[in-house]
Amino acid sequence: MNKVRFGMIGGGPGAFIGHIHRIAAALDGELTLVCGAFSQNLEKSITTGQQLGIHPERIYANYSEMFERENALPEEERMECVAIVTPNHLHAEIALAALQHGFHVFCEKPATRTVEECEQLQNAVTTSGKLFGLAHTYLGYPMVVEASTRVKQNAIGTVQKVVVEYSQGWLADINFDQDNKQANWRLDPARAGLSCCMGDIGSHAANLSEFICGEKITQVLADLGSVVPGRQLDDDASVFLRYENGARGVLIASQISIGEENNLRIKVYGDKGSLSWQQQEPNTLTIYEGQHAAQVLRAGQGYLSTSALDLCRTPPGHPEGYIEAFANLYRQFALAIKTQREADKASLGSVCGIEDAVHGMKILQAVIDSNAAGNTWQRI
Amino acid sequence: MNKVRFGMIGGGPGAFIGHIHRIAAALDGELTLVCGAFSQNLEKSITTGQQLGIHPERIYANYSEMFERENALPEEERMECVAIVTPNHLHAEIALAALQHGFHVFCEKPATRTVEECEQLQNAVTTSGKLFGLAHTYLGYPMVVEASTRVKQNAIGTVQKVVVEYSQGWLADINFDQDNKQANWRLDPARAGLSCCMGDIGSHAANLSEFICGEKITQVLADLGSVVPGRQLDDDASVFLRYENGARGVLIASQISIGEENNLRIKVYGDKGSLSWQQQEPNTLTIYEGQHAAQVLRAGQGYLSTSALDLCRTPPGHPEGYIEAFANLYRQFALAIKTQREADKASLGSVCGIEDAVHGMKILQAVIDSNAAGNTWQRI
Amino acid sequence: MNKVRFGMIGGGPGAFIGHIHRIAAALDGELTLVCGAFSQNLEKSITTGQQLGIHPERIYANYSEMFERENALPEEERMECVAIVTPNHLHAEIALAALQHGFHVFCEKPATRTVEECEQLQNAVTTSGKLFGLAHTYLGYPMVVEASTRVKQNAIGTVQKVVVEYSQGWLADINFDQDNKQANWRLDPARAGLSCCMGDIGSHAANLSEFICGEKITQVLADLGSVVPGRQLDDDASVFLRYENGARGVLIASQISIGEENNLRIKVYGDKGSLSWQQQEPNTLTIYEGQHAAQVLRAGQGYLSTSALDLCRTPPGHPEGYIEAFANLYRQFALAIKTQREADKASLGSVCGIEDAVHGMKILQAVIDSNAAGNTWQRI
Amino acid sequence: MNKVRFGMIGGGPGAFIGHIHRIAAALDGELTLVCGAFSQNLEKSITTGQQLGIHPERIYANYSEMFERENALPEEERMECVAIVTPNHLHAEIALAALQHGFHVFCEKPATRTVEECEQLQNAVTTSGKLFGLAHTYLGYPMVVEASTRVKQNAIGTVQKVVVEYSQGWLADINFDQDNKQANWRLDPARAGLSCCMGDIGSHAANLSEFICGEKITQVLADLGSVVPGRQLDDDASVFLRYENGARGVLIASQISIGEENNLRIKVYGDKGSLSWQQQEPNTLTIYEGQHAAQVLRAGQGYLSTSALDLCRTPPGHPEGYIEAFANLYRQFALAIKTQREADKASLGSVCGIEDAVHGMKILQAVIDSNAAGNTWQRI
Repeated sequence: MNKVRFGMIGGGPGAFIGHIHRIAAALDGELTLVCGAFSQNLEKSITTGQQLGIHPERIYANYSEMFERENALPEEERMECVAIVTPNHLHAEIALAALQHGFHVFCEKPATRTVEECEQLQNAVTTSGKLFGLAHTYLGYPMVVEASTRVKQNAIGTVQKVVVEYSQGWLADINFDQDNKQANWRLDPARAGLSCCMGDIGSHAANLSEFICGEKITQVLADLGSVVPGRQLDDDASVFLRYENGARGVLIASQISIGEENNLRIKVYGDKGSLSWQQQEPNTLTIYEGQHAAQVLRAGQGYLSTSALDLCRTPPGHPEGYIEAFANLYRQFALAIKTQREADKASLGSVCGIEDAVHGMKILQAVIDSNAAGNTWQRI
Repeated sequence: MNKVRFGMIGGGPGAFIGHIHRIAAALDGELTLVCGAFSQNLEKSITTGQQLGIHPERIYANYSEMFERENALPEEERMECVAIVTPNHLHAEIALAALQHGFHVFCEKPATRTVEECEQLQNAVTTSGKLFGLAHTYLGYPMVVEASTRVKQNAIGTVQKVVVEYSQGWLADINFDQDNKQANWRLDPARAGLSCCMGDIGSHAANLSEFICGEKITQVLADLGSVVPGRQLDDDASVFLRYENGARGVLIASQISIGEENNLRIKVYGDKGSLSWQQQEPNTLTIYEGQHAAQVLRAGQGYLSTSALDLCRTPPGHPEGYIEAFANLYRQFALAIKTQREADKASLGSVCGIEDAVHGMKILQAVIDSNAAGNTWQRI
Repeated sequence: MNKVRFGMIGGGPGAFIGHIHRIAAALDGELTLVCGAFSQNLEKSITTGQQLGIHPERIYANYSEMFERENALPEEERMECVAIVTPNHLHAEIALAALQHGFHVFCEKPATRTVEECEQLQNAVTTSGKLFGLAHTYLGYPMVVEASTRVKQNAIGTVQKVVVEYSQGWLADINFDQDNKQANWRLDPARAGLSCCMGDIGSHAANLSEFICGEKITQVLADLGSVVPGRQLDDDASVFLRYENGARGVLIASQISIGEENNLRIKVYGDKGSLSWQQQEPNTLTIYEGQHAAQVLRAGQGYLSTSALDLCRTPPGHPEGYIEAFANLYRQFALAIKTQREADKASLGSVCGIEDAVHGMKILQAVIDSNAAGNTWQRI
Repeated sequence: MNKVRFGMIGGGPGAFIGHIHRIAAALDGELTLVCGAFSQNLEKSITTGQQLGIHPERIYANYSEMFERENALPEEERMECVAIVTPNHLHAEIALAALQHGFHVFCEKPATRTVEECEQLQNAVTTSGKLFGLAHTYLGYPMVVEASTRVKQNAIGTVQKVVVEYSQGWLADINFDQDNKQANWRLDPARAGLSCCMGDIGSHAANLSEFICGEKITQVLADLGSVVPGRQLDDDASVFLRYENGARGVLIASQISIGEENNLRIKVYGDKGSLSWQQQEPNTLTIYEGQHAAQVLRAGQGYLSTSALDLCRTPPGHPEGYIEAFANLYRQFALAIKTQREADKASLGSVCGIEDAVHGMKILQAVIDSNAAGNTWQRI
């Protein structure tokens, strides 16, 4: 049995994303959770670990202890990879420590709080020779990979315009800030970092657009708002974009758009065609080529590219969703680890790496700067 | 028989919008076309007039002749109102002349080329005591009126955020500019005025958002592009908005978004709910209130407001469309004229008047200025 | 001016379908309403006629008077065609009289109450040499014509299976029967004929399927219900079908499907592909060919067949609806009349003729017989 | 750690549904796969078992060996439950043997080939006191449970009409029969049993309708077809239904509806409202109550019933799909097993039990009988 052995930092009682990580990692049977420091409170950590069937000796009080004691285990037994699912402000130090101890890192987004931290992390990754994966979940959807493939194949010509939106409504209610654990830390500069809305979800939108277009964002002009009174961080963001090939873009992100659930959608217009995808109906990709009728591509169909089909588990019409997209990240990351066991270099597939993390932090910083400077263009 | 008698300037052979105006005016039997100067070429004007069954003596060579000779007819016979459907640059002078001759004016959009011209026109309207209507077609849709009514009734609370988009793809092809009559004048500064994309369609988006929200736009920051090489006017526009109550907005307009047909859509988010409408499925309005399930309102249903139901001709499920929306403008304008026959003051219903025309020109000018000034905020 | 001159029987105050007929006939300017007997009550007839601007001498007390006095007018003035929009039970006698007086007939559906009556009418049409059109409105939609064309062009291969549904909910409420004028006569055997649901709407579904498939229905097995207690006629109908080429079908019609508006939809499956259309979004036709992605065809697009494009008035994305579909029937019927003015034989385009009327009555009779015989197969 | 220990019969190399069962069982961490006889070929069984990390001593040659040797293990180690995922014709004998050895059974559909076999199995379940679950996957969707709950709460009044459809196109191609492993056995009477289309998918449609309506089907009139030449079993089925409360229904199932993927959809009409759900967009449920606007309910929202929310893992807008629905069956079955460890009686939640299995076989038999008798009504 050659499953990838991984441990987890964070994801204790009540944590949403930690639970999703574990389900996703388990889905395809490529990884096995062997240890964890699930909470800063040891009792809670033990509770979670026991529920998960982790051997008691491998439920740890904190990440330092975990990395040291795992390193002391025989190589064929010790964890190979750590999943970091703590609040944002702890990601960087844990990731650095993990790399230094020789573990691969799969990290919740964002990788760090600042560009500088992220560049340090990049150095550490390079030095360590270990793999670093960032959980940009939406790149795990097969139809997103198909979209990227079709753009590469020139199905829509040269990209000229992008409209990407990520709207949610769950932070529209002011009473929510205090009561909700998820809202609480996201709106606290000390724990969330530079931004709430742009950092938490706008970053996904920017990343998605770059992945599909195969073009990096080079300039931004941002208009950030704290719509609900009393907030220190943004809960709404609108950004004009320029991509490296000159294409124009508009990014809309919002957490106060009441009635929206998790409405990430993108339209990419080229000079020969266009495509459209939305996360809430993820198994459909609409492509318009030239003057022909729009085509509706569907997950699981034989006409998809191999790279997209490889990410489908079920026949057409059996919907796969968010958890499966997340599982595709873990699956690709696990395959890369297995490859790396025997070879030097492994592709992460559609999983974002440390370069993407650094670039994403630079976009975020530029957005913050643009808004602070009175809504002016900033170069990445 | 007390139909409103109207004449038409423009709308000769091959004209699209003139034909739509005539169908729309005829639809409900409230108006009758009695005369016209359909083309600058008299022969063409006669051809069109004859096809329409206009009496030969009332097919004119130009608007001056038409206004004078109609004025010489007995009051119960002469035209009461003129529809102006020429290219943009002629609207203002015709409208002024019509008002001076005592005719009501129903004018294609835009009313004028500049703010100044529009303010002169406003003076003329005031002085004349005549009615002036501007063809903002999309306000003729019943579900747009319902949206406006619901916002007034506080169904979504205070408006906080607006996303409005009007995307088309028909100017994506560079080869099109020379060949297509519709494209040709729209991209020519001499005939189209300050702007192509923002003036032609972005203005509809701005107007629609103001109508539904019941709030005027007070500031803009615009990013205009001439994406297809060689164009002098914009074919793509993105604008950040502020409304008078402080609400934030994003307006996206494009004529190079290949694959898009006439994709005008709007989402309005309040602090208690939100609503969503799109022109390509105009008989549906989605409203989200509080924490309840979204409601899908449908044209013709008894639960709609009277003002919306009055604009529906068919029972639910019998789709009405663009022509019917246009006809609703004519119907409301004709009713106002009939009212004015006997009273001083008549409401235009959801038809835009001269104040809207002036305000719309100011927005357009501010958008042009913002872009020219390097994408800075401009006050209206 | 060579508009087709038509008169109308029925369509007095409060009539829904008469009003739609008039709007539809006026829409394209091909016909002009010159006379009418709008109600069995002369005063009401005069009221309606005056509102419509009909010359007082041409507002008649009843159809006999109208046909005789119109016949006495000079040929270039007299009406050429009569539109019959009375309740069902009067259609046949009026149509017969009209043909005998030398008028073309455009008749609301159904043409008659029984197969025998319809065959008599067929003889009268043949003898008279006049045109007979039946208002199967849904064949006036461009995308229905496109669907028919694509099947003819073998885009989906040999038709094997059809699912066609026409569901409404407006008769779900028992209290409705007495109060509602529309409901009232439809549920009265004396005025509606053999059937309510199957005759009124199921017949449209059957007709639509035959038009698109290019195959006639040859056998039926029906299950009719009077779901709301106390009704003498059916308000719900399910029918198994066989087409002449052996294809299988299911027809679902209902007037008690609460929540449904006017949900006519069809799917046709061939051995190489399939297509799907629904009346509530009439400007879209989805086609699936072979193993390729589904294609979404849209009204007004250049890739449509000429026969479909000829029925579109607006560019893509400017929705046309029910009234425009109805107008397409009138337009095609008017063109046939104009052709017939000078030639022997004129095509009705997608307008149903007397053969379709007879065939439709035979299907209806077979459905009634099947249900009465305990749900057995009946041949047409 | 108190996970439920289960074994699997079937699901060897290339098996689709066995893989789905394993993913689904693993998803929530409630079960652990401890043993299996994955293929009739021992080598293949070992290959699969090793890939899954099963202890070599617990990979068995066949089910008899497995049941005996597992029974010999200490109680806290031995499997508690067996998942049966072999071709149809083996289900019954394996299930019987499992029950006799004291194991709970979770069985792929259909439970048996005939009603008689199923009644024997029912006796065995009763005698054994063990739990029996049948994989009617679609009852695992939260919005299906919500639909059922809303009907129970009288949101749509008394059910009057049901339209349920399950259309696929994958058996439209005749060349497919020989080449495709999935198609192969389904069309072979010896292995599939009485029916292909009705048994394989029509049965899901019937079951879904009964679950949502809370009413059993009591009569059927069926029209089965073998559309692709040369087939012995049905590939297309249409059925008129009667439910125990007198409600009428139409069931459409097809495997030759080319272009359809896995299009299971249902509409239920009551005398006060209606609801609509479709499997390909499973996170949405549309409800229409009285004369109000339709409501669109969404998975994960706080306004759902507890029983539906308990089956959601992610916040609104993070789509869950087929695998998650399947996992919900396993989760509920595992919880029932855990309950049964300590108590006498456990609820299966929305998992079908042996009574549903027997009833389903009776419907299938009645459908076959109806068709064989020339499409006559058959009582269940």
